[in-house]
Amino acid sequence: MNQKERFGIALVGCGIVGGGTARLLTEDQNFLQERTGLPLVLKYIVERDYSNARALGIKEDLFEEDYNKVLADPEIKLVVELIGGLTIAKKMMTKALEAGKHVVTANKALLAHYGPELFALARKHNVCIGFEASCGGGIPIIKALTDGLLANRIEALFGIVNGTCNHILTEMTEKGQSYKNALKSAQAAGLAEADPTLDVTGMDSAHKITIMGSLAYSEKISLETVPVQGIDTVDLYDIKTGQELGYIMKLLAIAQKTDKGLALSVAPAFLHKNHPLARISGAFNAVSVYGHAVGHTMYMGRGAGSSPTASAVVADIIAIALGVTPQAFKTLTFWPDLTADAVQLPQGELESRFYLRFMVQDRQGTIARISTILSKHSISITSMLQQEGETDSIPLVMTTHLAKSGNVQEALKEIASLEEVENKPVSLRIVEEYPESVS
Amino acid sequence: MNQKERFGIALVGCGIVGGGTARLLTEDQNFLQERTGLPLVLKYIVERDYSNARALGIKEDLFEEDYNKVLADPEIKLVVELIGGLTIAKKMMTKALEAGKHVVTANKALLAHYGPELFALARKHNVCIGFEASCGGGIPIIKALTDGLLANRIEALFGIVNGTCNHILTEMTEKGQSYKNALKSAQAAGLAEADPTLDVTGMDSAHKITIMGSLAYSEKISLETVPVQGIDTVDLYDIKTGQELGYIMKLLAIAQKTDKGLALSVAPAFLHKNHPLARISGAFNAVSVYGHAVGHTMYMGRGAGSSPTASAVVADIIAIALGVTPQAFKTLTFWPDLTADAVQLPQGELESRFYLRFMVQDRQGTIARISTILSKHSISITSMLQQEGETDSIPLVMTTHLAKSGNVQEALKEIASLEEVENKPVSLRIVEEYPESVS
Repeated sequence: MNQKERFGIALVGCGIVGGGTARLLTEDQNFLQERTGLPLVLKYIVERDYSNARALGIKEDLFEEDYNKVLADPEIKLVVELIGGLTIAKKMMTKALEAGKHVVTANKALLAHYGPELFALARKHNVCIGFEASCGGGIPIIKALTDGLLANRIEALFGIVNGTCNHILTEMTEKGQSYKNALKSAQAAGLAEADPTLDVTGMDSAHKITIMGSLAYSEKISLETVPVQGIDTVDLYDIKTGQELGYIMKLLAIAQKTDKGLALSVAPAFLHKNHPLARISGAFNAVSVYGHAVGHTMYMGRGAGSSPTASAVVADIIAIALGVTPQAFKTLTFWPDLTADAVQLPQGELESRFYLRFMVQDRQGTIARISTILSKHSISITSMLQQEGETDSIPLVMTTHLAKSGNVQEALKEIASLEEVENKPVSLRIVEEYPESVS
Repeated sequence: MNQKERFGIALVGCGIVGGGTARLLTEDQNFLQERTGLPLVLKYIVERDYSNARALGIKEDLFEEDYNKVLADPEIKLVVELIGGLTIAKKMMTKALEAGKHVVTANKALLAHYGPELFALARKHNVCIGFEASCGGGIPIIKALTDGLLANRIEALFGIVNGTCNHILTEMTEKGQSYKNALKSAQAAGLAEADPTLDVTGMDSAHKITIMGSLAYSEKISLETVPVQGIDTVDLYDIKTGQELGYIMKLLAIAQKTDKGLALSVAPAFLHKNHPLARISGAFNAVSVYGHAVGHTMYMGRGAGSSPTASAVVADIIAIALGVTPQAFKTLTFWPDLTADAVQLPQGELESRFYLRFMVQDRQGTIARISTILSKHSISITSMLQQEGETDSIPLVMTTHLAKSGNVQEALKEIASLEEVENKPVSLRIVEEYPESVS
């Protein structure tokens, strides 16, 4: 680009991340110019409510309510979409792309639902979309997948990609808090929304694995095909019992290559306490990526928050102003508008170890009956724990060797129908450290 | 680039990393073409000894001894320098740049010694140098510093960047092995060179902190100004005693911003066992980078080895063929041929906690005399450990609050001159978790 020409930026949405972005672009404008040589200029902020922008001391002459005027300004090369949600955000992004503006966004929901359509639209108008901030907050994980690890066939990707859930699980694990109280503490710490549904149901993690998995494997993943389980049904008893057995519970987003297709999932799972991801605690995120050449690499950082996410937004702005993202978008072939639908492993075919818990009445022969059913479905047990109970109903906990998840589900159905078994049995994956294949 | 035009690559050096690179570029040629859309072609391998290439099954028609012929081939756009060392490598790289070829290298020694000169030469000939593989093996840490974290003022960088040393320290810590035996085991595992001097003296880590630090801070660091201490003088006794106090020893490369300039060092140091870097064990490397916006980010992976390092080499080749590295090299301003000399914190000014060990004869008043000297130099003690000894000479271990390293060195000199103090006192930094400044 011509270095004397200003690179005009319009920011749509000035909430938590938008505010952080506005601050970085204005307070650090000279620093950014010195460090990059690029004349980045935040020219407009489009918002319905400027109270946050005012509170941050953003200059009022940036405020502009007329989005059409912004898009008509030829100096605006790039629109940053940070309003979130699906409806208005999609309209605003579509208009920007149609006006020939590059777009940078942190909106994982939008990209997980409409990524291929939006990427195709960008391509049609010869612009591109930067979305580093959509996954893992400030961690440059999209860059790693689309650049640093490009020489690799990715074999597996495991992510702790929701800070709210990780904070809640950490509180429950380390302080023995109930789910309810841990959620309240996350809300008090500004880590969870007033309506935390997207986070705690695992949907937010599903959005992110859809985006990351599509890039990692050059296969288009459809959000609705990802099996999703949240942490909202997790019982403190299982966290504590898992801990006694040496495991830590994390909400894991997984995209793993198998001979029969991609195995995708979002679910709470147990990791051995020495597993590298077991130690990622609180609001931190981490993504482990295994490549056929590089082996295990891991990326850790703050997965949310104003300035960490803004760090990723501004990195995207720089890469677009520099011309490198447009070039990558034009030439590389793994963008989700260009790839075929992912071939997925049929869900019951996934092999994993499992933690199982049954609530049983203390009768003679119960363990034998349960073990027999498990054995009939080719499930073998590695450990068993039955504590003495004060009530009639006693928890019986088992961990298994590798078993097909379909077999486990069938066995559990059968066990649930036993007379002495109360409630629905609990099953949680035990995810072992993925074996590297490096040479 | 024109996508029909082949992007010809010449590989100079076909040892461990060169062999891995040749395999990736040949065995995975179709995969790379599919994944990137780039027609990368390995056309020549220049080596004096082709035995490794032959053992790997590389096709002999790639072997070419005449480097001038290679450079004269207009289809060759890029030369990969993987012979290592300073003399021949520098000549070969210089010739490639002068012939208008881009260069990719894993040669940290060369870049740490002659980086500014080589970058300037590349710039003069309108080509660029890719060096992701020079630091942290397969970890895309150079990309993080020159791209993903660009919006940040970097505040601190802590790296475990030598797999040989980390393997040796891990063996000593976990298995109580002597330094000598741990070194032998590293050599047996192919993790240490027959001559491990560059690794165990810390020089290799110094090369890497010179390269990473110059980029992180946009200030040119001169290798000879980095204080370097290796692991070759580490005593198993201190590792064990540190462990009893809750600390793990790591060889840390540090570049930290202070009010008075950059604090650079390579030295064995103690980390609390819960410090994120304390858990990086064996041959793994990790780099923690703290930015003013992003907070703490950490990058982990294999720091050496054939295919992990080749992964970084091929990522660099892709980024150059794609045109993105040339663009970044032209526009961004932090390359070491463009920046001013780093302003460094005077060495004695560094504030840190310390682990101190004195070998003393068991006399009355010794602790008082030592404590008095420390106190006189404004050093206060946080813990003390004196074990009963079977010999006359007893180890006395102390940990300190934050103290100026210059004061510590002066105090130690004075203490060493006490009659009852034998040997040279041992002092090791205790590096605490760096406080994030994110908002």
